[in-house]
Amino acid sequence: MLGGMQDFELRVTRLLDHAEREHGPREIVTRWADGSETRTHWAGIAHDARRLAQALERLGVAKGDRVATLAMNHSRHLVAWYGAAGMGALIHTINPRLFDDQLAFIGNHAEDRVLLYDKAFAPIVERLKPHWTTIEHYVCFDDGAFDALLAPESAHYAWPEGDERDACMVCYTSGTTGNPKGVIYTHRSTVLHAITELQPDEFDLSTRAVAMPIVPMFHAVGWGLPWAAAAVGLKLVFSAVNEPAILCDLMNREKVTHSAGVPTVWFAMFQHIDATGTAPEHLKIVTIGGSAAPRAMVERLMKMGVRVNHAWGMTETSPIGTMGAPSPDWDELTFEAQVDQVSKQGKVPFGVELRTVDDEGALLPRDGVSSGRLQVRGPWVVRQYFGESEPAVDADNWFDTGDVAVLHPDGTMQITDRAKDVIKSGGEWISSVELENAATGCAGVAEAAAIGVHHPRWEERPILLVVRKPGSDVTAEAIQAHLGEHVAKWWLPDEIHFVDSLPHTATGKLLKTAIRAQYKDFRLAAA
Amino acid sequence: MLGGMQDFELRVTRLLDHAEREHGPREIVTRWADGSETRTHWAGIAHDARRLAQALERLGVAKGDRVATLAMNHSRHLVAWYGAAGMGALIHTINPRLFDDQLAFIGNHAEDRVLLYDKAFAPIVERLKPHWTTIEHYVCFDDGAFDALLAPESAHYAWPEGDERDACMVCYTSGTTGNPKGVIYTHRSTVLHAITELQPDEFDLSTRAVAMPIVPMFHAVGWGLPWAAAAVGLKLVFSAVNEPAILCDLMNREKVTHSAGVPTVWFAMFQHIDATGTAPEHLKIVTIGGSAAPRAMVERLMKMGVRVNHAWGMTETSPIGTMGAPSPDWDELTFEAQVDQVSKQGKVPFGVELRTVDDEGALLPRDGVSSGRLQVRGPWVVRQYFGESEPAVDADNWFDTGDVAVLHPDGTMQITDRAKDVIKSGGEWISSVELENAATGCAGVAEAAAIGVHHPRWEERPILLVVRKPGSDVTAEAIQAHLGEHVAKWWLPDEIHFVDSLPHTATGKLLKTAIRAQYKDFRLAAA
Repeated sequence: MLGGMQDFELRVTRLLDHAEREHGPREIVTRWADGSETRTHWAGIAHDARRLAQALERLGVAKGDRVATLAMNHSRHLVAWYGAAGMGALIHTINPRLFDDQLAFIGNHAEDRVLLYDKAFAPIVERLKPHWTTIEHYVCFDDGAFDALLAPESAHYAWPEGDERDACMVCYTSGTTGNPKGVIYTHRSTVLHAITELQPDEFDLSTRAVAMPIVPMFHAVGWGLPWAAAAVGLKLVFSAVNEPAILCDLMNREKVTHSAGVPTVWFAMFQHIDATGTAPEHLKIVTIGGSAAPRAMVERLMKMGVRVNHAWGMTETSPIGTMGAPSPDWDELTFEAQVDQVSKQGKVPFGVELRTVDDEGALLPRDGVSSGRLQVRGPWVVRQYFGESEPAVDADNWFDTGDVAVLHPDGTMQITDRAKDVIKSGGEWISSVELENAATGCAGVAEAAAIGVHHPRWEERPILLVVRKPGSDVTAEAIQAHLGEHVAKWWLPDEIHFVDSLPHTATGKLLKTAIRAQYKDFRLAAA
Repeated sequence: MLGGMQDFELRVTRLLDHAEREHGPREIVTRWADGSETRTHWAGIAHDARRLAQALERLGVAKGDRVATLAMNHSRHLVAWYGAAGMGALIHTINPRLFDDQLAFIGNHAEDRVLLYDKAFAPIVERLKPHWTTIEHYVCFDDGAFDALLAPESAHYAWPEGDERDACMVCYTSGTTGNPKGVIYTHRSTVLHAITELQPDEFDLSTRAVAMPIVPMFHAVGWGLPWAAAAVGLKLVFSAVNEPAILCDLMNREKVTHSAGVPTVWFAMFQHIDATGTAPEHLKIVTIGGSAAPRAMVERLMKMGVRVNHAWGMTETSPIGTMGAPSPDWDELTFEAQVDQVSKQGKVPFGVELRTVDDEGALLPRDGVSSGRLQVRGPWVVRQYFGESEPAVDADNWFDTGDVAVLHPDGTMQITDRAKDVIKSGGEWISSVELENAATGCAGVAEAAAIGVHHPRWEERPILLVVRKPGSDVTAEAIQAHLGEHVAKWWLPDEIHFVDSLPHTATGKLLKTAIRAQYKDFRLAAA
């Protein structure tokens, strides 16, 4: 029996229409790379998005074509998302921090027809232009070029209707092996994900929120915030530069209540606070994802009075997979127990399902102990990568994340490692992430990386690379003693090396492949 | 271009599956009509819902059939919702407070095949049985009959898959004129509405919430709470009896944080608090809808430290239309200004659109002044009533609500009256609701009803019927003086009559049709 309700297609244009109609004057603030600041609002974004839609049509962009961006977070980038996706094309965010061969591959594989880029990335564009074979139009966001593109167009434009299962965006995973792979989001998956992010147990986004996504818009859909923000018409604050002093100042002037970024961002913010005594004053909720947040980071933010949303997800999951919201018994927990809880990655929202399996694919119990490969499915999880002939999932839609995790009896998920970062010692697994998190809890340690190196007897043994905090002279012995209180004895690293810095990926994660490559032929002194 | 994401049908069974899998032990508490209390949990509800699904199949219920309930709020009623809708039938909640001819009409019009009823409503069942022509099976929720129905069934059952646009529920509007009309909700409309209700600007529902819906499950989908609760696995507390002393005691013992009910419920609660000095201690958010909440009620709840969600909606809108969440400038407002804001009905969530039109159908501006007929559309708004051959909406899907409202420039909606309750005096409109709300702000007034009575010159003039608070001897002069401070002079009622009580609808609203019928031939003393 059919129902008697109205219906509409879940399209991202409806998010923008809502923001314009109901929250038109709510501000979108941008601090640009050159230090200037501009203010627009949802009505302004919608106005310009409709103008861009027509400008793209003028350039010959058709439904289903790809419009790429090479850009940081700012209001014009937001216009590009809604304008391109709204007119029926796919917005394609390219990560400017990738290697040149990856950048060339991605642009050609997506068959991008237009590239919108920040002036700061003009050198990349000049370098790659000879290699990009499908891009016909290059438009700089700065110096008036983007405005000139829009200039001939009026705001009178009706978004094309279409199926909610049409594609609206593509984002490539910056895989560390093989070619990058494109995830093709649909209007439906994007809208369902956006309204899920609003939930109190997720980002907790209301119209009152003032949100600064520090996570770049090119990193895993900017964690969905540019779409979710429109669903409640919250105030967005963008900075095109991710310097902690600039971010902190902007947060305080604009009274930012919600922010989101990878652990590296918060490490840098702590250093800024320690150095200047100036801290973000209005922050209520910080979402941390991208890689696991060390316990010490969670604890420090919570002591600042901030709710920490410890999230897990990936480009393939739009990206929300799990979020560490306070549990029902939160108020009865000690502070230590609260920190313990938030140091895990939390639970799934309605829509997402998780399971863990062993190396043979056998289902593992949710017992809080069994560690296995994490698999995920749901209506905003990848089914098939762009241009691939085979699905990325098994027959039951399970996607293998490449993460290693434990599921607790209450459904809480705890990442123990990336499958490829696990240190395999004598047939048992040592979690590099847990070693690193324990190490960064030691006074004087700024950052740490644990990798496995060859061992003639145990196959692999862990070594730990440590960056000391400025002015610290923490010793290897002190770190070993600290680690001894937090991990099993056989997990203790065979050697600790002090280094000046560690390499990071474009999104701020430790670049383990580079570190492992550097230590490929390393021999332990005692082995 | 098609996307590369997974997908699933938005079916209510997925809400229950989520609650069982991720929040299985989270409690569902029921205080029954006989004073006994039981505790189950989401896993228990899911377990029994699967058993009921099979029991219904055993009785011959097929996909698309209607399974009716005549019941208050309790865990077995919740099982009935998920079991019937889950197995492909429609759950049909019947309002037991309707008149017999309406009850007979509704059961026959819906062609209900099964009726599940509370023992307290057995007299209704006995009375109506001879008139209901399609009901084959009557099962009492109490005295072991419902449990006996489930007894032969195991919990091993896979919910049937199906289209998200299949119907899952029907609810009849208790119209005051003509026959009741059935609204047929789809799985899709129900799930979209449920996840929307979670938003911080709506019911603000997290896993931590302990929610007691005082609004009966037969009233406008129980405001959607039985569905939304599963989406986050919150704790539900039901009372099958709506006595304020019982509700208050249960709220305090179970630490209820969220509640929802019509204004009458909160009037009764205030009387309980005044009489006993005992108040709900853990309440954080109270949602009030069904009819406009008087300013004095909003103010009193806010002074108790409760956030008041002033909602507007109707059976035809699933029911969420608008919700009065705090605005972005909330913290800068005076308490008086905050109360003013909450006394309006708030804004639409993503999905709902509103407009006002004049009697000729011309669009009115959002100027905070122009009062007109309120129209609504969106993916959980009615399109066509059950069994009707014509749509209930115009060509652009606008549904005329029968309410009269003002839209403010920021999108805030303010109900001024029901179209049929407006008092038309000399060609101008007097809002009966505003008169009533002003009157209940006067010390000594428990409740008030304003109706228009015949006037030889002005067509209609208002009179006010007042129920005094126990022990009060407030005079008509005092009330007139109070009203003079709040409404235009020509709105002041020509007469004030004191009465012992006022008639209410099944859902606690003033029964204006009965009051008007009583005063049909009334003649003003001065006219």
